[in-house]
Amino acid sequence: MSVSQLSVEQLRQQIRNNDYKGSTSGLAQSYLQANLVILPKDWANEFLLFCQRNPVACPLIGMTEPGSKSLQEIGIDIDISRDVPEYHVFRNGEFENSVYDLTEIWRDDFVVFVLGCSFSFEDALMQAGLKVRNIEEGCNVSMYDTQLACHSAGRFHGNMVVSMRPFTPSDAIRAVQVTTRFPKAHGAPIHFGDPLSIGISDITTPSYGDAVEIKHDEVPVFWACGVTPQNVIRHSKPPICITHAPGKMLITDRLNNELSFM
Amino acid sequence: MSVSQLSVEQLRQQIRNNDYKGSTSGLAQSYLQANLVILPKDWANEFLLFCQRNPVACPLIGMTEPGSKSLQEIGIDIDISRDVPEYHVFRNGEFENSVYDLTEIWRDDFVVFVLGCSFSFEDALMQAGLKVRNIEEGCNVSMYDTQLACHSAGRFHGNMVVSMRPFTPSDAIRAVQVTTRFPKAHGAPIHFGDPLSIGISDITTPSYGDAVEIKHDEVPVFWACGVTPQNVIRHSKPPICITHAPGKMLITDRLNNELSFM
Repeated sequence: MSVSQLSVEQLRQQIRNNDYKGSTSGLAQSYLQANLVILPKDWANEFLLFCQRNPVACPLIGMTEPGSKSLQEIGIDIDISRDVPEYHVFRNGEFENSVYDLTEIWRDDFVVFVLGCSFSFEDALMQAGLKVRNIEEGCNVSMYDTQLACHSAGRFHGNMVVSMRPFTPSDAIRAVQVTTRFPKAHGAPIHFGDPLSIGISDITTPSYGDAVEIKHDEVPVFWACGVTPQNVIRHSKPPICITHAPGKMLITDRLNNELSFM
Repeated sequence: MSVSQLSVEQLRQQIRNNDYKGSTSGLAQSYLQANLVILPKDWANEFLLFCQRNPVACPLIGMTEPGSKSLQEIGIDIDISRDVPEYHVFRNGEFENSVYDLTEIWRDDFVVFVLGCSFSFEDALMQAGLKVRNIEEGCNVSMYDTQLACHSAGRFHGNMVVSMRPFTPSDAIRAVQVTTRFPKAHGAPIHFGDPLSIGISDITTPSYGDAVEIKHDEVPVFWACGVTPQNVIRHSKPPICITHAPGKMLITDRLNNELSFM
């Protein structure tokens, strides 16, 4: 059975067993996928403030008690330390390595932040009859570092990361309408058109994820992206921080449409 | 007292007395302004169907009984035959002349169609903190013939006319959100960016209204326009048709926000 046909429970089981380590884009459709940031307790309150000040890039869905690997808001049987296909470990702001299970490096002072993800609105875009290029091409979404500064909070500061999907202008207008309904999944786009005006010098070379085709009658449309914290962590240098690998999300038991306000 | 400071009743009185014959853009803010199409009874049902099939360009607010100069939906004391600053008379599809009062040419078989107008959402755009260029420049909005075909209905067929307002991409995204709330005032834009792709060869020369500045970091954003019927009438050649002059609307007693669904 293709991974795209698995139920949310089956897919998460495969991920937990390290049988699936790929992108979760287009998988477990209609289920809320989430960005993950794990920090030591003494960095957590500042990151909470960072989320509050940057709600479009960092739409906070939930935050654990120190040491807890579970969070009622996203599902009962989820083990945050094992249920992501690939984790990135950063030490002092530097990427150290990828791991597929956090059991061995888990600490009692870890606090987990679960943030909304644009994959939620991709589901809504497709339900509205729009084609999402990265899903059509079966690859990870294109993500870019920008020159758009986030609002700082304590030791956390840095620039926004964006995801990009190409659309014709009329489909882009429809995409604004659809994604506006999902403020907890980054909401409406933050930019369209000229990449350079937000500091992207080469649209064909994403900073993260895969490149996708942009057709001659299409414009790139940019949404704030949950990879933003990873960029901020590089600047802010906490002794340890663990995130999901870009495009490889935590799949929750909640429905995307639970995040919609209409 | 400047015309922009007049109450809706004062302004309509000036118009009725032919003391004001100009554009109503930016006037009587917060009051619903409307496009007008007047046709003989034997053309009315086909135009009603045309509106039903083209609700974005022709958002129907009300339709009179034959011969009636008033319409409960838009206000009690409005005389449709006198309360528009300038009317355009078309005979057999050809523009014949401008008049400022319809009393002398009124017929008992005239049916009036009152259609929503983008001026309604200009008010909402400004309330949302956006600058509307034509109001900033104190001129009429830019309007263009396009190559976008309307859906035909009986003898009515032709292309859509659009209005254009320039915005930065992020303001354009906000403008999509704001105008989406006003389906009876043309709703969301139908296009942004490249004018040629909808058949506009020279953005600096509007087909109707005035040219406005488009700054280097802005894109033109296009909405369906209530001047569309005037273009359709040229093709469809009813023996007589009367419309408002572009940009010179019927100001009603209803509030723009009564048209908003949120």
